[in-house]
Amino acid sequence: MKLLIINGPNLNLLGTREQNIYGNISFKDYLQTLKNQFTDINIAYFQSNIEGEIINKLHESEGNFDGVILNAGGYTHTSVAIADAVRAINTPVVEVHISNIFDREEYRHVSLIGPNVKGSIIGFGMDSYRLAILSFS
Amino acid sequence: MKLLIINGPNLNLLGTREQNIYGNISFKDYLQTLKNQFTDINIAYFQSNIEGEIINKLHESEGNFDGVILNAGGYTHTSVAIADAVRAINTPVVEVHISNIFDREEYRHVSLIGPNVKGSIIGFGMDSYRLAILSFS
Amino acid sequence: MKLLIINGPNLNLLGTREQNIYGNISFKDYLQTLKNQFTDINIAYFQSNIEGEIINKLHESEGNFDGVILNAGGYTHTSVAIADAVRAINTPVVEVHISNIFDREEYRHVSLIGPNVKGSIIGFGMDSYRLAILSFS
Amino acid sequence: MKLLIINGPNLNLLGTREQNIYGNISFKDYLQTLKNQFTDINIAYFQSNIEGEIINKLHESEGNFDGVILNAGGYTHTSVAIADAVRAINTPVVEVHISNIFDREEYRHVSLIGPNVKGSIIGFGMDSYRLAILSFS
Amino acid sequence: MKLLIINGPNLNLLGTREQNIYGNISFKDYLQTLKNQFTDINIAYFQSNIEGEIINKLHESEGNFDGVILNAGGYTHTSVAIADAVRAINTPVVEVHISNIFDREEYRHVSLIGPNVKGSIIGFGMDSYRLAILSFS
Amino acid sequence: MKLLIINGPNLNLLGTREQNIYGNISFKDYLQTLKNQFTDINIAYFQSNIEGEIINKLHESEGNFDGVILNAGGYTHTSVAIADAVRAINTPVVEVHISNIFDREEYRHVSLIGPNVKGSIIGFGMDSYRLAILSFS
Amino acid sequence: MKLLIINGPNLNLLGTREQNIYGNISFKDYLQTLKNQFTDINIAYFQSNIEGEIINKLHESEGNFDGVILNAGGYTHTSVAIADAVRAINTPVVEVHISNIFDREEYRHVSLIGPNVKGSIIGFGMDSYRLAILSFS
Amino acid sequence: MKLLIINGPNLNLLGTREQNIYGNISFKDYLQTLKNQFTDINIAYFQSNIEGEIINKLHESEGNFDGVILNAGGYTHTSVAIADAVRAINTPVVEVHISNIFDREEYRHVSLIGPNVKGSIIGFGMDSYRLAILSFS
Amino acid sequence: MKLLIINGPNLNLLGTREQNIYGNISFKDYLQTLKNQFTDINIAYFQSNIEGEIINKLHESEGNFDGVILNAGGYTHTSVAIADAVRAINTPVVEVHISNIFDREEYRHVSLIGPNVKGSIIGFGMDSYRLAILSFS
Amino acid sequence: MKLLIINGPNLNLLGTREQNIYGNISFKDYLQTLKNQFTDINIAYFQSNIEGEIINKLHESEGNFDGVILNAGGYTHTSVAIADAVRAINTPVVEVHISNIFDREEYRHVSLIGPNVKGSIIGFGMDSYRLAILSFS
Amino acid sequence: MKLLIINGPNLNLLGTREQNIYGNISFKDYLQTLKNQFTDINIAYFQSNIEGEIINKLHESEGNFDGVILNAGGYTHTSVAIADAVRAINTPVVEVHISNIFDREEYRHVSLIGPNVKGSIIGFGMDSYRLAILSFS
Amino acid sequence: MKLLIINGPNLNLLGTREQNIYGNISFKDYLQTLKNQFTDINIAYFQSNIEGEIINKLHESEGNFDGVILNAGGYTHTSVAIADAVRAINTPVVEVHISNIFDREEYRHVSLIGPNVKGSIIGFGMDSYRLAILSFS
Repeated sequence: MKLLIINGPNLNLLGTREQNIYGNISFKDYLQTLKNQFTDINIAYFQSNIEGEIINKLHESEGNFDGVILNAGGYTHTSVAIADAVRAINTPVVEVHISNIFDREEYRHVSLIGPNVKGSIIGFGMDSYRLAILSFS
Repeated sequence: MKLLIINGPNLNLLGTREQNIYGNISFKDYLQTLKNQFTDINIAYFQSNIEGEIINKLHESEGNFDGVILNAGGYTHTSVAIADAVRAINTPVVEVHISNIFDREEYRHVSLIGPNVKGSIIGFGMDSYRLAILSFS
Repeated sequence: MKLLIINGPNLNLLGTREQNIYGNISFKDYLQTLKNQFTDINIAYFQSNIEGEIINKLHESEGNFDGVILNAGGYTHTSVAIADAVRAINTPVVEVHISNIFDREEYRHVSLIGPNVKGSIIGFGMDSYRLAILSFS
Repeated sequence: MKLLIINGPNLNLLGTREQNIYGNISFKDYLQTLKNQFTDINIAYFQSNIEGEIINKLHESEGNFDGVILNAGGYTHTSVAIADAVRAINTPVVEVHISNIFDREEYRHVSLIGPNVKGSIIGFGMDSYRLAILSFS
Repeated sequence: MKLLIINGPNLNLLGTREQNIYGNISFKDYLQTLKNQFTDINIAYFQSNIEGEIINKLHESEGNFDGVILNAGGYTHTSVAIADAVRAINTPVVEVHISNIFDREEYRHVSLIGPNVKGSIIGFGMDSYRLAILSFS
Repeated sequence: MKLLIINGPNLNLLGTREQNIYGNISFKDYLQTLKNQFTDINIAYFQSNIEGEIINKLHESEGNFDGVILNAGGYTHTSVAIADAVRAINTPVVEVHISNIFDREEYRHVSLIGPNVKGSIIGFGMDSYRLAILSFS
Repeated sequence: MKLLIINGPNLNLLGTREQNIYGNISFKDYLQTLKNQFTDINIAYFQSNIEGEIINKLHESEGNFDGVILNAGGYTHTSVAIADAVRAINTPVVEVHISNIFDREEYRHVSLIGPNVKGSIIGFGMDSYRLAILSFS
Repeated sequence: MKLLIINGPNLNLLGTREQNIYGNISFKDYLQTLKNQFTDINIAYFQSNIEGEIINKLHESEGNFDGVILNAGGYTHTSVAIADAVRAINTPVVEVHISNIFDREEYRHVSLIGPNVKGSIIGFGMDSYRLAILSFS
Repeated sequence: MKLLIINGPNLNLLGTREQNIYGNISFKDYLQTLKNQFTDINIAYFQSNIEGEIINKLHESEGNFDGVILNAGGYTHTSVAIADAVRAINTPVVEVHISNIFDREEYRHVSLIGPNVKGSIIGFGMDSYRLAILSFS
Repeated sequence: MKLLIINGPNLNLLGTREQNIYGNISFKDYLQTLKNQFTDINIAYFQSNIEGEIINKLHESEGNFDGVILNAGGYTHTSVAIADAVRAINTPVVEVHISNIFDREEYRHVSLIGPNVKGSIIGFGMDSYRLAILSFS
Repeated sequence: MKLLIINGPNLNLLGTREQNIYGNISFKDYLQTLKNQFTDINIAYFQSNIEGEIINKLHESEGNFDGVILNAGGYTHTSVAIADAVRAINTPVVEVHISNIFDREEYRHVSLIGPNVKGSIIGFGMDSYRLAILSFS
Repeated sequence: MKLLIINGPNLNLLGTREQNIYGNISFKDYLQTLKNQFTDINIAYFQSNIEGEIINKLHESEGNFDGVILNAGGYTHTSVAIADAVRAINTPVVEVHISNIFDREEYRHVSLIGPNVKGSIIGFGMDSYRLAILSFS
């Protein structure tokens, strides 16, 4: 099984950014842990701060991956274009969020992407990614 | 580890009710599958259509369970009282939904319980419960 | 034909409560009048102030009644759970209201149950129940 | 007893228009059925697509009819003027709708006319008119 | 004089629940203090997490008590049915809140019950109950 | 000077309709009083319940009258088309209302016509028409 | 007859302030014109930029004047306190506005004072005051 | 091919009304230009200020025209009844607007008719009608 | 103990103003009753219709009084500045209202001051002041 | 004449993506058809999923093209920046949409770009592009 | 150059009030620092808690000062009258705020005065005043 | 001291774009003026129309600059992702706007970035940048 994790804007700063909300582990380190744990799954990784590059990557996933795990960061709440991209492809997409978006600013309560995904996993910290992988197994 | 699954209103009808949304497996059958899969976890089950009985059960979980998996059904969107109960206890609560609540009627997009839980797992069908158990392991 | 009338919260006080809105006939007396009028119909009656008991009763109606006449009282405007129950069963449900809910407080203008019922009869006083029975004949 | 049925805009197309919502019986045919059923009631009929003509007819009903059965169609949701006309006359008016307006577009959920009528009968298909006549008997 | 205190959902946890908001005194202990202080008043007590049982108790108060002191907890903000019950009875009801509901989440700013009560006492901690008793003297 | 008074829907019922709001003088009688009072002004009168006929009359006023006094009744709050007609002509239009629209239902607080008129006179009962005539002198 | 004109904030600048909206006549000059025109009416005048002084003056009008003509300026849209003062006194108050408040910023469309006055005269420029005086004759 | 152009309220004033928005060509003149340009298309024309007459004409188009070009003017934003008429007929309807409705008052941004038409052409001045004809070829 | 009662706009008219809402006792008389009842408390009194003078008085209370009882009248619903003043001082402030503000116009349901006070006492008529004093004892 | 067609996010998938909404023709094929049809017009084409690249291209069009045909896809509803770019340049821009945006999700009803364009052509499927070209001829 | 600093309600408490938000320097001390720093500018100062006195002072500034630096405190968010005063005078006004109003309660996000000023300086603590002076140099 | 100025979308067109709003000076020329004026400050400059590139640059500023001056242009009102980037870094960011955003379209009144910055300087034309530099000195 081949899975692609796509991280959106500012998630390259994980481990240094607002540690009280996002924790102090870099995603690079966490990714290694995941790979060690799921040795039979091919896990690819992509991060970009650019909305359109995330759309490009979603398009490319078609036919190349069995699933996408998407944390669209701040674009979750504003990007009709990414939401359209998720709907436009056949690859199943699972939405993850590290923090509990329902317990933060009101504008973070709404996910434009949510209606188009296979499922959403929200608020388990980094562990949200592990659960997303398990949702494909 | 001892976990308590609490199902809210109308979820006793799973398997017969609106099968296009909720599938055709009864929760009783599904629960047996879960127990077979997680033999080292003690899984208790409670279902009620009465809001206050769900609150009572949440109170009782304190000290008796390591975690609660809560699908509050229709009360998810209207019950400040259940949300308060989740906040009032120390037992970690994971919220699950079978259907993708973001892809249904607008009034189902908001979860009053969401801000108070450890995490939310939404839209994976029955599999949402399995992922919730895995979130405790 | 077997019909079940379900009355929700505070409707046990009919005849004494706010007589300018609800009239001064008790439901018990009115029910007898109905039974006398429709001798060929088996009319059962249930009243509860507890939301979940109304849901339970709606579930039980399945297979046991040809139709339900539901006045959910104050729950009409707040209960997603009762609305879900109406949708979850196959028994046709007719919604009735004694008072003209459109001519009262704004929060009474919306019926969450309305979208799921066979039809709604609103504002004819006690006579709303008689018209509801006639809608089944 | 003399009753006047007033049908508003597009209801002249009943039987041909959107049959999945409104059924395939023309109102002319249905009216004959009603007349056969209620031989002791004098049932007059008026249809217009013009808002002001409906108002004129409501005014004329005063003193000439014992009741009006009004399906204002699309004007139900936009016409303060028709609502005012209903309030301005003493003839009791019963509002009917063929379709379940609560289960359609949001702008059809609100009836401006509702607060001023004797009662409302909604969603029983053509049978709504029969129940409206019965509400006068 | 006979007064009935009705406490709603989660208030059975007073003294253990969110002590920074609700304080660390159990209601049982506080009630004894009140009784000691008002020896000439007969103070009865009822607590339930079930909305409908609170309605039942309000109905029963009619004729049996000179007044009701009601803290409806989370139901304050969502229960049209309890608000209707307060209006349906003649017993004067005083609404109390331990915390300052205006200084908490937005959805706690609105009291559906407020318009129907004799008066409201909000935010004095446990002392709100004492002031409510004094309002009857 | 030639002035045209245009009255909208239901204003033909003045004197009989809701006398507590609109008084018990018919407009016909009142018009005679006005004509007696303003002998040097040529006062024409038009009433219609049909929105489009009011628009037609506004168009016709162009070049034939020095001013229009318009009470659009219920169309005041819903008719973009009449508001457009007022803006489309050069004849100055004064808006009048018999009742205090700010002290009635919320939907009567907004006048779509208001932004396009020379001025508005609201709430003086029948006397609003006299003041409107005086505004042209 | 004794009438009191009360002008609110910034109206002391009439004639110099935003002449495209308010014209270039000072109120002092205009007032003299009014006095010359209505020689049989005793017209007093008060202007203040202080909300509470306007309230004080409204209170003082009781018993001393037959009517008040109030242009509350910017307080029109924000002052519950002035609106309360108008309702608290028996002196009839007529509201005037120089500009067409319906054709300006959205927050000027609502008058808090409007529901409590005898009538409103809006948008006739300075002439609004003359018409207000005529409304008392 | 036979096409019917329907113009709504105030569009009879084209060429004289608000020339900065609508231009200075009368529709009569423009229609002749269109006919000269499309000699192989039979172009009929209808204009009315009366909402219901526009509905009547839409009904009549059924079977008599290959398409309707509809500029409903001010009724675009308020008429559920015209929108229903467009949906009720099988003749394809193209919506046109002379001015850019998105660049005008907020209430002109929403078209109730838009969801039911074959397509919308907005803001090209008179040229919108030519493009609408071309959409049928 | 020294307490300061501050009454806001129009409360100087108590006893004469809208007696059905506010009763027929002047505050002067009621204040004497209070002083007689609480002989061991030094009760000072201040009333002003001017928002800024209420702010001044709140500032002056610092260090001079053990508590303030504030009925801000109409400013309750509009004055961010008074709310800021309450927060800016250390003197505990108790908010009182004579009428049930939740049962009046919608704009009276919100108290800007509420979030900053020690507690609120609402709707007990004049007796609200007595309860406020008792809240300090 | 030189025209530039700019397609926004996900429109590179035309022909494969959601064929029930967007049809099964790739834009590449359709573009060739257009070029064959308009041999005297130089039609350039640009597609990007990146918001800022669309802005860059709009800037570059200045002086190089006689017009731009813009389908901003999902950015239509969220991008103030693209709307600003359209306003910042002198090249006339025509907005096109393949689907009827008024008949889809509510957030697609609003076009931020609409107020700044020469005109909008909505809902004619691929044919919207042909009509846009014709709008320049 | 002569500049006038106007401080609104509660700003007389600077240095003692909510030091975590506003700092611990009194404005008197800070003003001296400013005067020392800008020896070639004549800096006048005015503070009032009374809305109307701020309006009076703004009027007086006309012709006497080259600019006004206005911190309207809580009136920023509620005073149409002060906003009107700013627009009514020709003296340029710069708006300052000590705290970041965008990072506080929602009702502080909107400045009614903002649209009328030369510019706004927000959130730099006391330093906002220094920057405002520099904006005039 | 090293400062970085970041300009967002369309600001590369300054001097040519909408000169009535933004003036006729190119930013390149203005930047030179600034550098001449602040010879002891190292001023770097970056402009991009791409949201994600602005985020990248904000990340890069960490440790390399003492402060950032950010004019996010149209992204100010829509970009949660840029706002998150500002919060994620420790470099202090000052927000500037050339035009008075409070005096333009409603959607420009809200700054998503505002809550996270050190301070905001709005509406002083190009001079806003100079004041922003001064805020760091």
